[in-house]
Amino acid sequence: MPGSLYIKDIQKNINCSTAALTTTSPTTTELQPLMAQPDLPSDHDNSQENRKEKDPTQPGPTTLQRTRACFLKGVSYFSGDMKVFGKWMEKQFILLQLLDWVLRGAAQVMFVNNPLSGLIIFAGLILQNYWWALNGFVGTLFATISALILQQNRGAIAAGLYGYNGILVGLLMAVFSNKGDWYWWLLLPNIFMSMMCPIVSSALASINSRWDLPVFTLPFNILVCLHMVATGHYNHHFPQVHIQPRSELPNITWAEIDVAKLFMSVPVGIGQVYGCDNPWTGGIFIISLFISSPITCVHAVLGSAVGMVSGLALAAPFGDIYFGLWGYNCVLACIAIGGMFYALTWQVHLLAITCAFFCAYLGSAIANIMSTFGLPACTWPFCLSALTFLLLTTGTNKIFKLPLAKVTYPEKNLTIENRQWTISTFICTPSALLTVLHYFTVATVLQVNFIFMNV
Amino acid sequence: MPGSLYIKDIQKNINCSTAALTTTSPTTTELQPLMAQPDLPSDHDNSQENRKEKDPTQPGPTTLQRTRACFLKGVSYFSGDMKVFGKWMEKQFILLQLLDWVLRGAAQVMFVNNPLSGLIIFAGLILQNYWWALNGFVGTLFATISALILQQNRGAIAAGLYGYNGILVGLLMAVFSNKGDWYWWLLLPNIFMSMMCPIVSSALASINSRWDLPVFTLPFNILVCLHMVATGHYNHHFPQVHIQPRSELPNITWAEIDVAKLFMSVPVGIGQVYGCDNPWTGGIFIISLFISSPITCVHAVLGSAVGMVSGLALAAPFGDIYFGLWGYNCVLACIAIGGMFYALTWQVHLLAITCAFFCAYLGSAIANIMSTFGLPACTWPFCLSALTFLLLTTGTNKIFKLPLAKVTYPEKNLTIENRQWTISTFICTPSALLTVLHYFTVATVLQVNFIFMNV
Amino acid sequence: MPGSLYIKDIQKNINCSTAALTTTSPTTTELQPLMAQPDLPSDHDNSQENRKEKDPTQPGPTTLQRTRACFLKGVSYFSGDMKVFGKWMEKQFILLQLLDWVLRGAAQVMFVNNPLSGLIIFAGLILQNYWWALNGFVGTLFATISALILQQNRGAIAAGLYGYNGILVGLLMAVFSNKGDWYWWLLLPNIFMSMMCPIVSSALASINSRWDLPVFTLPFNILVCLHMVATGHYNHHFPQVHIQPRSELPNITWAEIDVAKLFMSVPVGIGQVYGCDNPWTGGIFIISLFISSPITCVHAVLGSAVGMVSGLALAAPFGDIYFGLWGYNCVLACIAIGGMFYALTWQVHLLAITCAFFCAYLGSAIANIMSTFGLPACTWPFCLSALTFLLLTTGTNKIFKLPLAKVTYPEKNLTIENRQWTISTFICTPSALLTVLHYFTVATVLQVNFIFMNV
Repeated sequence: MPGSLYIKDIQKNINCSTAALTTTSPTTTELQPLMAQPDLPSDHDNSQENRKEKDPTQPGPTTLQRTRACFLKGVSYFSGDMKVFGKWMEKQFILLQLLDWVLRGAAQVMFVNNPLSGLIIFAGLILQNYWWALNGFVGTLFATISALILQQNRGAIAAGLYGYNGILVGLLMAVFSNKGDWYWWLLLPNIFMSMMCPIVSSALASINSRWDLPVFTLPFNILVCLHMVATGHYNHHFPQVHIQPRSELPNITWAEIDVAKLFMSVPVGIGQVYGCDNPWTGGIFIISLFISSPITCVHAVLGSAVGMVSGLALAAPFGDIYFGLWGYNCVLACIAIGGMFYALTWQVHLLAITCAFFCAYLGSAIANIMSTFGLPACTWPFCLSALTFLLLTTGTNKIFKLPLAKVTYPEKNLTIENRQWTISTFICTPSALLTVLHYFTVATVLQVNFIFMNV
Repeated sequence: MPGSLYIKDIQKNINCSTAALTTTSPTTTELQPLMAQPDLPSDHDNSQENRKEKDPTQPGPTTLQRTRACFLKGVSYFSGDMKVFGKWMEKQFILLQLLDWVLRGAAQVMFVNNPLSGLIIFAGLILQNYWWALNGFVGTLFATISALILQQNRGAIAAGLYGYNGILVGLLMAVFSNKGDWYWWLLLPNIFMSMMCPIVSSALASINSRWDLPVFTLPFNILVCLHMVATGHYNHHFPQVHIQPRSELPNITWAEIDVAKLFMSVPVGIGQVYGCDNPWTGGIFIISLFISSPITCVHAVLGSAVGMVSGLALAAPFGDIYFGLWGYNCVLACIAIGGMFYALTWQVHLLAITCAFFCAYLGSAIANIMSTFGLPACTWPFCLSALTFLLLTTGTNKIFKLPLAKVTYPEKNLTIENRQWTISTFICTPSALLTVLHYFTVATVLQVNFIFMNV
Repeated sequence: MPGSLYIKDIQKNINCSTAALTTTSPTTTELQPLMAQPDLPSDHDNSQENRKEKDPTQPGPTTLQRTRACFLKGVSYFSGDMKVFGKWMEKQFILLQLLDWVLRGAAQVMFVNNPLSGLIIFAGLILQNYWWALNGFVGTLFATISALILQQNRGAIAAGLYGYNGILVGLLMAVFSNKGDWYWWLLLPNIFMSMMCPIVSSALASINSRWDLPVFTLPFNILVCLHMVATGHYNHHFPQVHIQPRSELPNITWAEIDVAKLFMSVPVGIGQVYGCDNPWTGGIFIISLFISSPITCVHAVLGSAVGMVSGLALAAPFGDIYFGLWGYNCVLACIAIGGMFYALTWQVHLLAITCAFFCAYLGSAIANIMSTFGLPACTWPFCLSALTFLLLTTGTNKIFKLPLAKVTYPEKNLTIENRQWTISTFICTPSALLTVLHYFTVATVLQVNFIFMNV
């Protein structure tokens, strides 16, 4: 659903149901700089809308325009950050609100502030493993509750910004437990660590806000590594899976490469963001991303592909590549740089690709270091590479870092800097789509060549 | 001795010896934000006192009030931060002053700015081991001298804020040396590292002051780890004790648990702050804390108990728990959060307990990571957990972080935010005492249940 | 060439060729705080010069003065930061400029902004190893190109501040590659990592500029460690040399010490800044330092000597000391503190010696930790110790940290704080030279005593 603002312009023309939108009062509360605050730009939208509504010289729309506008309006209800739904939710029962926040939290791992995406993601998790999905849900729920107890910013809680670390903590603690599924005692450290999430998030936000940086998934990384290394493989109560550093040359025979598995590693890489190795789960996640933001979706796929190519270039064991371990950090890094925290331009798009390559390199490095302590890489590589690229200062205005308080989703971010981009956004996004598809093809061709060269 | 300000109000009433207090001139030097500056609130005290003294309508006190006031006044001379003694010291010979600073430095490890507590702590150290006590004294002395040479803030030096890292550096270098006691060459690196303390303290304070955070024992952690890993176990001049990571399941039989030792682990945990495993030394330290600040004392005991419970919950080897390794970080974290850097309220008290649990978890994690390099955990877990909890921002005013320049000791901290709390402070502290005793009982009961459940 | 400002004063008197100098227009661009900006003080120079030129009461110079002035003026053309040459270069063809930037980048590793020094350094590298020199050149070139693409500050690029990390990345990746020389595929990761340098530099500068600190060689450390640990010893494409932690007592027999090799370790230590173990290469580097700044040169030699002494004191294996591994970090730390980022005084000189000792200690510690991951220490010890000493705040004005924007080279730095030091600078430098030679002698004597004591 590209160009939600364009839709709104049309909405003005056909004058259908502006009531729901005009009720949005300006949010004056000073939002805590945790990650993204989706409310601030809404004031500008409304003011512009109001100005346009008073314009009586606007000619009436044709039937085609009308049909298209109604279609786009329908799309706008469940795409983007589902603001209309969020407004409606504010008046509902607290438990229903909490469910909304939990679902948004589940999707915020991918920077998506959309309860429908969250619901689809939970469906993907259930497809993968019931026990993991349960742990993820418990993690998100208790992280959100803890944020409420600690009286964190309500807008950030409602956007799911206190839940996404919780879902990862819950999921990954279940994934790396050596006691197998349905070991109920695991819920105790799960709840404790989830409830620590808002504390660590708030502490990190105090530091990162000095540079107007988000905390990303750093709280999750810290807390899961904390739990894993505190107990370790040799523990009676909460043993962890055994991870050891590599100590011999891996057996890589290029003739044995399985191209089908290699292609499957792209959705698997996206699934591995949530610790899932099922390609169907990864596919479901791609759909959930597409619903909210096609730009995010394209960068996710592109990131995963870059990760796979990097894995081949650095002579990683094929098993790791097939399992998506080279992809998931690049997915997140590519989304974060490619349109989420920078306004999308061609230069930013190239920067996102560079960041994904850097992230893959860093991923290998961090995985090797962490294995010394029996730890997985988690999403440290993504956090560190994305923070590095967000700290970059350049002389060009083509690489424009959005103020953290104005970050929403890539399509809407495009409209912040320059109001007249509304139409060009619409055009820009499909062209961007084409380009990245082109990139993807080129990368694949290169990679196939690479394989045959080595055979 | 709770509510020293209350005592001062009474002092006005009975008009006995205000001369010593009115001589205190306002300190106008801009104090460097190292940890705590005890001088700033004194101006307010005096101005308030002066205002009150001019009030002629005040009725005379009864005999009971008079007796009680005289008793409290006597107590005030050696409790709290012993300000009257400190003022008197300023006019003495420099070597005597230096001794005062060294003693205050020894006590500042526990956030206590009191030379009497320092003296008792040295007595405890001598009870433990002569050689260690000597090294600790040398460390404190040279750290203070180095701070004088580097012309650090005199107020901070006089409060012992440059000495406490020195005593820990001296003590722990002696504790972890593999050459045994009375290896005199050890004094060379001891003096070098102690003299580096103010440099590292000053550098860290430059960073931490941006967030109005203290440096805690970070300089000690950095310098002792530096010395230990620079030389290592396999060194001809300064070999260290051999610390290795755990590589098999520890043999934990719940039937073999020794409840007496488990209870003894609480004072041992307090002793381990200074690297001492003698329960009597730990007991002496408890007394030294009680003299200066009962709130600090209670939180110390509570923290040690929380550490022990956490050790049992995470299936730690009993030997480690008996040896106090699970306690000492929690002791410090619980003191720091519980009234020292936050104004004590019920919410803060609960936060301190949470921090102690988090610290225990973190302690286990850091100990496992550090053992890979042959290092002990030192007090890294305390520093990191306390800094995290101090960086927390909440929407509630019940969790009020004191400005670093106003931090003194828990009983006095209570009076900073709100001047009219003078009486309520007096009432509040015993009730807090009762509560924490209650907590302690509950924790113990829970823990015993836990043990029997597992038998 | 001490006291270049003194030379300029004489230039006014004899009125020869002020045209080249007066063409320098005030640089008004806000320079990015990466490391050192050599342009800012020039405005002050000119204004002072202009004021002096208008003074008609100045008596004419004698023949001796004239001859000496002409000699000093000749020296000024190729010493210091070669500003006249830099100005002339600005009007040349871009490729020639790029060569100038690359040469300055090669010298900036030692904080020297001088293309002639850079040329001599490249000569030293070629003497050591052709392949390494080629990799170093490629690294510097692509780092500078990448900075141009990312539109970084042109003044910083022209000063070589984006190149010095590139040369180190290129050199050390070649040094630590296990595939031997002329493995051409290595150029691929070399170019990628070199091009990442400006991104990481810019990101780190965003953080460090909050404390007005330079980034030093942190980007190089991060990127080379990244490459080495990402691939590791067991990699098919880019294997690294095998580095393992020490696991037994080194065999140190004091009778076997080779005093000639011990003395040779001083130039070797300077050579090891660029990863070179050839003492002649180290000697060439000393010459290149002397050309630009004698103070830098003296501190480099002193630092290397301090490193050697520390190695003996901490019972390091003799092989490591001979190989210069104890020297190179101290060289850089001693240069950075001794006159480069602090205005040189006696106190600062002593601080630089202290920093070098601390750096040697830290070097041993970091080398032991990094070897666990199969990594060399790189220049982490230098970066961390120099940053610590630059963060130091003292009450004395004898230790004056220069604002980062005013840092040029030690002789010129002396003139920033106090304009009337022009003559005293000239006197100060030879005396400083004598002192450090004295120091060096004392250190050597002490060390020889030390050796015989142990025999």
